[in-house]
Amino acid sequence: MDVTYKSVTPEIVKELENIVGKENVSTRLADLDQHANDQGVYPAHRADALVWAKTTEQVSEVMMIAHRERIPVTAWGAGTSLEGNPIPAFGGIQISFEHLNKIIQVHADDFQVTVQPGIGYKDLNTQLTRYGLFFAPDPGANASIGGMLANNAAGIRTVKYGATRDNVLRMVVVLADGRILHLGSRSIKQSSGYDLVHLIIGSEGTLGLITEATLKLAPIPEHFSAAIASFNDVSAAIEAVVAVRGSGLEPAALEFLDAITIRAISENDLLNLPAKPTVLMEFHAAHHDQLQGTLENVKEICNESGCVHFFSTTNQSERMKLWHARHHTLETIVRDHPGQKVANSDVAVPISAYPELIDFIEITRLEKGVIAYSFGHAGDGNIHVLYAYGNDDEYKAAREMNAMVVLKAISLGGTATGEHGIGLGKKQFMQSEHGQALDVMQSIKQTLDPHWILNPGKIFPG
Amino acid sequence: MDVTYKSVTPEIVKELENIVGKENVSTRLADLDQHANDQGVYPAHRADALVWAKTTEQVSEVMMIAHRERIPVTAWGAGTSLEGNPIPAFGGIQISFEHLNKIIQVHADDFQVTVQPGIGYKDLNTQLTRYGLFFAPDPGANASIGGMLANNAAGIRTVKYGATRDNVLRMVVVLADGRILHLGSRSIKQSSGYDLVHLIIGSEGTLGLITEATLKLAPIPEHFSAAIASFNDVSAAIEAVVAVRGSGLEPAALEFLDAITIRAISENDLLNLPAKPTVLMEFHAAHHDQLQGTLENVKEICNESGCVHFFSTTNQSERMKLWHARHHTLETIVRDHPGQKVANSDVAVPISAYPELIDFIEITRLEKGVIAYSFGHAGDGNIHVLYAYGNDDEYKAAREMNAMVVLKAISLGGTATGEHGIGLGKKQFMQSEHGQALDVMQSIKQTLDPHWILNPGKIFPG
Repeated sequence: MDVTYKSVTPEIVKELENIVGKENVSTRLADLDQHANDQGVYPAHRADALVWAKTTEQVSEVMMIAHRERIPVTAWGAGTSLEGNPIPAFGGIQISFEHLNKIIQVHADDFQVTVQPGIGYKDLNTQLTRYGLFFAPDPGANASIGGMLANNAAGIRTVKYGATRDNVLRMVVVLADGRILHLGSRSIKQSSGYDLVHLIIGSEGTLGLITEATLKLAPIPEHFSAAIASFNDVSAAIEAVVAVRGSGLEPAALEFLDAITIRAISENDLLNLPAKPTVLMEFHAAHHDQLQGTLENVKEICNESGCVHFFSTTNQSERMKLWHARHHTLETIVRDHPGQKVANSDVAVPISAYPELIDFIEITRLEKGVIAYSFGHAGDGNIHVLYAYGNDDEYKAAREMNAMVVLKAISLGGTATGEHGIGLGKKQFMQSEHGQALDVMQSIKQTLDPHWILNPGKIFPG
Repeated sequence: MDVTYKSVTPEIVKELENIVGKENVSTRLADLDQHANDQGVYPAHRADALVWAKTTEQVSEVMMIAHRERIPVTAWGAGTSLEGNPIPAFGGIQISFEHLNKIIQVHADDFQVTVQPGIGYKDLNTQLTRYGLFFAPDPGANASIGGMLANNAAGIRTVKYGATRDNVLRMVVVLADGRILHLGSRSIKQSSGYDLVHLIIGSEGTLGLITEATLKLAPIPEHFSAAIASFNDVSAAIEAVVAVRGSGLEPAALEFLDAITIRAISENDLLNLPAKPTVLMEFHAAHHDQLQGTLENVKEICNESGCVHFFSTTNQSERMKLWHARHHTLETIVRDHPGQKVANSDVAVPISAYPELIDFIEITRLEKGVIAYSFGHAGDGNIHVLYAYGNDDEYKAAREMNAMVVLKAISLGGTATGEHGIGLGKKQFMQSEHGQALDVMQSIKQTLDPHWILNPGKIFPG
């Protein structure tokens, strides 16, 4: 797009202060720097001005100014994303949702909650405990709900409960020109007109800003069990993943970890696991007596696929220890590489293509001499590749390898990203993945944001 | 929209014949009449010409002609919809997908199937039996998959498995101008760009024509049980519905039937059930020994909510008898009203609002002297209201009552339709339900179909 943006003048700062109050606008470098980057590896970029919004109406008024003046606007939630999604790459105004972070209402009988976008995922679930309910898509970090919606985040529990987009019923959205839309309804089933809720989810703040959302919740399971199984090769491990998914046992988590990842976490967390391709599982049940039957069944399935080591437990502290190791895989790997950086990428493929993808990663890693760990949500065909690098050459090699992995995933019927979104880091693959559909995405962008002021530089290549 | 459409001239018929072959174009009144109406009660309208497409490319070429000539194009699947969705209200070309009805590939390890849109829902599941898999969203009728996608159909199993839109991964779509798009991927998790798959699902053939789709499948459950519980009032029945949903028992069906519906089906199917508000449930399990515990738990929950009659079974023929009665509710009611017509409407609300909605239906029915039965998928807050009428005055009263029910559902945080779509019958409510979001739907329609040739007269009021 040939767009010329204006920057934020002192007069505009005054206008912003009139909307949100003087204390909720900052042009101090310290504040701007704190919001100039996410947890990914892309270069930081400052906004001209940071605005903390407290209401939908304030967001709408700020957008009207930006629309009139052609000023870029980028949203900020918690900054836990990985592809540079909330970096204000063209400066302008950054709207932070950090203070728009309340639960508006818990609809306990409906298994729903209406929230503001700035609330943290973990904070929300802490507050929901007393209702016996939880918001299931688990991105690992304490991401903001708004960020999860913007990126269609997902995680370990998605195999059973779905991704973020599967758990949203209605939203309030502010468009580029300041119009306030009420999308969807609190009905679980909706077949009324175009599904704008799902158009906005995953659009990474480029089509509209989400200022309120009603989420589906699930009852907190009464009983948990965990199982971990080691295999001599990836194909055997994935055979077990497919068989467990097909068993009707409905795993709540179904994770794959490659041999070098297992070695790292096993040493760090004293798990005493063989350094082999490994499947880690969790099951939920309404009754304790269902757990034992499930675990026996799982063991049988794993053995049939050639499992060489199996451990299962219904004991809470044993289960927590296993999951602690999995949840802190990234930190463990970072610690194992002092003085180096670690880039976290994700791709996803149909499960049947998982062994071929993992083999490709393994071969490419060795060929290119890149340090790469792979593990992830095998139950959904989602894999994380973590690249450790210490200098520009190593970074370049890691980027090259990542591009090869992404194109391989697309060629296997998969996608450039299962849960991190496109941001800055994946936009070069949009044409390969979507072809002519990218033109349609661009037309819709042009229709809803004719001056391309919302989060410019993201999703669309060029 | 101020649009002037052209009709199909003999020259255009020739062009169509060149694309699909002479035998696949018809202008015979008998053929046109067979495709002039769905199973709803809205007036039939003929197309000018009917085209049976056999490939995506043929659909694309037909669309290029229609786009060039400004001829309306309406898709036809199986004609089982209820709101006039596939009626060619402005004539023009009707593209039938009846011959584009093959399974392209079963991806058994991925629990997926790729199909053409003309295949019937029941026919698909018959063919999938050998793989131990099924496509779960059950619309009741043998709807075409294309029609299910276009209307975001749902049904009895949606409480556990989701609606159609929750079970689609990728689609091939032909736009109004003939462009062929490949949307989504075969990865379960996708966070790559705008979610055009979900924009097209539920758009009722007004944004594009679906010529191929990859669907998520579920393993056929090994063990089934059913339970039926009667209550003295609706509130008690819904209290049980909420409690069962919150129990973690994961019902695969959770249906409500009002007293007069139960009386009708109980007499017809010799079920010997009390004519009281009733909840009908189904549960799936991987192990037979899980069923008994589940049913005891369900009985306890129902008793706590004031259940006055409870029956449960793991016996297949007893279970089938109950579900046969539920599946044939419409036919039973039609038979009970010889010489009358029966109109089937649906609305959906948050579950907590279900008792208020049912009370409203009951009061309005009595006040207006309308014959109305209500029953439906309580687990999702979805209710069907069936109106029986014998003359124009009774039809008018039923339409008035239906409008009151729809507006009540919207006021309760619900929607004008949970699963039948908007079509002709609900478009008058779009403004009330969506407000400014309707303008955005119109902008997107204008962007993707600038001459408004795809299924004109549907979804948008005026």
